[in-house]
Amino acid sequence: MRALLRGPAHAIVAAVKAGEVSAREVAEASIAIAEAENGALGAFTDFTFARALGEADTVDAAVRRGEPPPLAGLPYGVKNLFDMEGVTTRAGSLINRGEPPAGRDATLVSRLSAAGGLLLGALNMGEYAYDFTGENVHDGPSRNPHDPARMSGGSSGGSGTAVAAGMVAASLGSDTNGSIRVPSSFCGLFGLKPTFGRLSRAGTFPFCPSLDHLGPIARSALDLALLFDALEGPDPRDPAQAGRPPLAAVREIAKGAEGLRVAVAGGYFRERAGPEAIAAVDRLAAALGAEREVILPEAARARAAAYLVTTAESAALHLGRLRRRAADYDPETRDRFLSGAMVPAAWLVAAQRFRSWYREAVRGVFETVDLLLAPATPFPALPSGTRNVLLGGVEVPARPNIGIFTQPISFVGLPVVAVPVWLPGASLPIGVQVIAPAWREDLALRAAHQLEMTGMAAAPVAAKEDMAA
Amino acid sequence: MRALLRGPAHAIVAAVKAGEVSAREVAEASIAIAEAENGALGAFTDFTFARALGEADTVDAAVRRGEPPPLAGLPYGVKNLFDMEGVTTRAGSLINRGEPPAGRDATLVSRLSAAGGLLLGALNMGEYAYDFTGENVHDGPSRNPHDPARMSGGSSGGSGTAVAAGMVAASLGSDTNGSIRVPSSFCGLFGLKPTFGRLSRAGTFPFCPSLDHLGPIARSALDLALLFDALEGPDPRDPAQAGRPPLAAVREIAKGAEGLRVAVAGGYFRERAGPEAIAAVDRLAAALGAEREVILPEAARARAAAYLVTTAESAALHLGRLRRRAADYDPETRDRFLSGAMVPAAWLVAAQRFRSWYREAVRGVFETVDLLLAPATPFPALPSGTRNVLLGGVEVPARPNIGIFTQPISFVGLPVVAVPVWLPGASLPIGVQVIAPAWREDLALRAAHQLEMTGMAAAPVAAKEDMAA
Repeated sequence: MRALLRGPAHAIVAAVKAGEVSAREVAEASIAIAEAENGALGAFTDFTFARALGEADTVDAAVRRGEPPPLAGLPYGVKNLFDMEGVTTRAGSLINRGEPPAGRDATLVSRLSAAGGLLLGALNMGEYAYDFTGENVHDGPSRNPHDPARMSGGSSGGSGTAVAAGMVAASLGSDTNGSIRVPSSFCGLFGLKPTFGRLSRAGTFPFCPSLDHLGPIARSALDLALLFDALEGPDPRDPAQAGRPPLAAVREIAKGAEGLRVAVAGGYFRERAGPEAIAAVDRLAAALGAEREVILPEAARARAAAYLVTTAESAALHLGRLRRRAADYDPETRDRFLSGAMVPAAWLVAAQRFRSWYREAVRGVFETVDLLLAPATPFPALPSGTRNVLLGGVEVPARPNIGIFTQPISFVGLPVVAVPVWLPGASLPIGVQVIAPAWREDLALRAAHQLEMTGMAAAPVAAKEDMAA
Repeated sequence: MRALLRGPAHAIVAAVKAGEVSAREVAEASIAIAEAENGALGAFTDFTFARALGEADTVDAAVRRGEPPPLAGLPYGVKNLFDMEGVTTRAGSLINRGEPPAGRDATLVSRLSAAGGLLLGALNMGEYAYDFTGENVHDGPSRNPHDPARMSGGSSGGSGTAVAAGMVAASLGSDTNGSIRVPSSFCGLFGLKPTFGRLSRAGTFPFCPSLDHLGPIARSALDLALLFDALEGPDPRDPAQAGRPPLAAVREIAKGAEGLRVAVAGGYFRERAGPEAIAAVDRLAAALGAEREVILPEAARARAAAYLVTTAESAALHLGRLRRRAADYDPETRDRFLSGAMVPAAWLVAAQRFRSWYREAVRGVFETVDLLLAPATPFPALPSGTRNVLLGGVEVPARPNIGIFTQPISFVGLPVVAVPVWLPGASLPIGVQVIAPAWREDLALRAAHQLEMTGMAAAPVAAKEDMAA
């Protein structure tokens, strides 16, 4: 059982569907791991074990009837900005935990549970998602299972920690500027940030409405496809959702990357990348036959504009709370919101106009390219508490620069699969972004799947003496 | 000839097409009127008489060949923010008149000239279009031909003055918050503000890109339809244009308003309206059988949000010039831009979020209504220089409040025909907005045409002793 729970989600689901293990056995074993590990790693902030066990019994009954649901017995957790019925949605904050419990699940949570998932609880995150480290002054840091002295990455830190530690087979996170892709990179996981507007955001606490995405983190590309198929589809509760026809990612993924035109993002995406990031991209580029290098024009400016939009939109959401409860914020988060509240509107207008221009420029790049490879982070997981790093020979603040490669991509809503690479001899993983044109998650998933099947990418659960068997 | 030139544009075009008068005769007579009247009225800032005469000769040759163009011999002028080849585009400013002459026509100018129009010149406007009065510190005011001591309305002031004085049969203006509808109301003309994104803006000086519209002003609803058909159509020079299929407004207009569900905008649109505005709306409502009153929810907030968006976006466009040439602005315009430059981004974010909400709310209203009637201005033309007015018993600044009824409509891009009403015994006209759902200019034009044909609306050239014959 322990070995099964350390493998990909699709193997657990297959075993439950086949009756080789019961969902209740999966739930109980997962609960035991989560209880044993969570104190040291800080992945979960809220447990919903009774719910998981109840869901397991429902799944087992369905299996006995010969009607197993598509994600039968898949143990999962969700970033604590997703509503879970009966649990207060803290969104990483002290302030929100004074709110009443949620009256119903977020749409994506109800979809996973309806599909046979077992919800173990809510996962740690940076306060109000304004974070790339996985640290949280109220709940403590979510730690990196591959080296607990290092960052999980954030803001979906617990969503990375829990999956990399084998507590759950998958998790849901949110990604505004990189918050799924960064912990996927630091924790060595597959993470999917879908196209902006693809998945319903109903029942989640927002950070920056024009940039917020939700998506899954898992230990296999096929798991991402399974989860994606269960998550997508129109939702009347979210009018901002685009309502595109479903992709059927699981069916598409078997096609692999054959015939896809893959290129490497040059310029900005190489100049500021550390040696591990460059090596990881080059390794996947070679595996996918990517010989071309293309330039995303004005990527540095895109990152700056994403910053402005983020800080201005999020400050607008927080103004009332800042006035009433300023002392209850993490002082560093508070400073980010307060400075955002003072950004002149004319700057935001310039950023928004640039965004329109940049969206068209990026669309042009994808006329001759199907997939683009770029580092997910400039370096592997940093030691917790790192304040400054060297990037391209210049000392810069660590936290904001963790997201320099993810921000210019989410700024225009492109779908990305973060693919985990273990370089030969490395003690830490690092992620590569496989970037597709809008609405083509299938292309990125096909390439990620092929990389996994050929051993170029892998997401092992962190080795631990007492669990290695 | 003088009588012909005081009538609607379609009558001039019909006479030229029939060979009853030549386009050259129309041009020469129009030039004579413009030269005689302009000193007193301040309508034109630049004359292009040689061009008009050349265009007239081209039209006459086409008529002789039996191939008259659709707007054969139509004398017109354009707000001086439209590029005209060989003329500097001043956009109402001192600063821009130091720029070199335009190398080519704005798209809409080239379309009218290609359709047989005779371009007499560029028309006075408020500085950088940030105006509702028609006053301009650099070029002097454009005056109201019905009472030269009163405002023409703005910012397309000269576009109203020239048509109401009979100098030209039609003009082009721009409307960001009401700048076509306000001078149409004050000068007693038919004005069309099309759906946002309908007409190309290529070759015009912008004010606020997310709100700027261009459109025609004329003395008849049929003239608006004729002009609209010549103006619309895709333009590769303007990527922001939506490129909808053409409406063929002239064909549609004959249907009249029979069967259309017409309602009156209540609440905000009546509480702040003066007695003439109420009476004009009620007169047209009775004529169109409009018995229902509907509420546009949060119209006051929509106006406030339109203000924020206007001031922030326009400040962003002007920041560089403000830094270098602050002293060369009209001091009042400068204050508006400078205050816009200091608006916090969080306010703009709130305004933009509200705008999305309001657009949906207004769309909901139009599910049970085809046309909505509202005042174009709260009162008829004010005496020039008026600083304060009473609105609903409260003394408020005159200039910004002229547009209180136009701003909440253009904020969400709905098409509007401003229809001129002369109340019994009135010495001044006042306009009523006939508001249609997005992309349905045809509905508003049909109602305006019926009102004109039944004598409920009319746009006579201002009476003047020496021209009355």
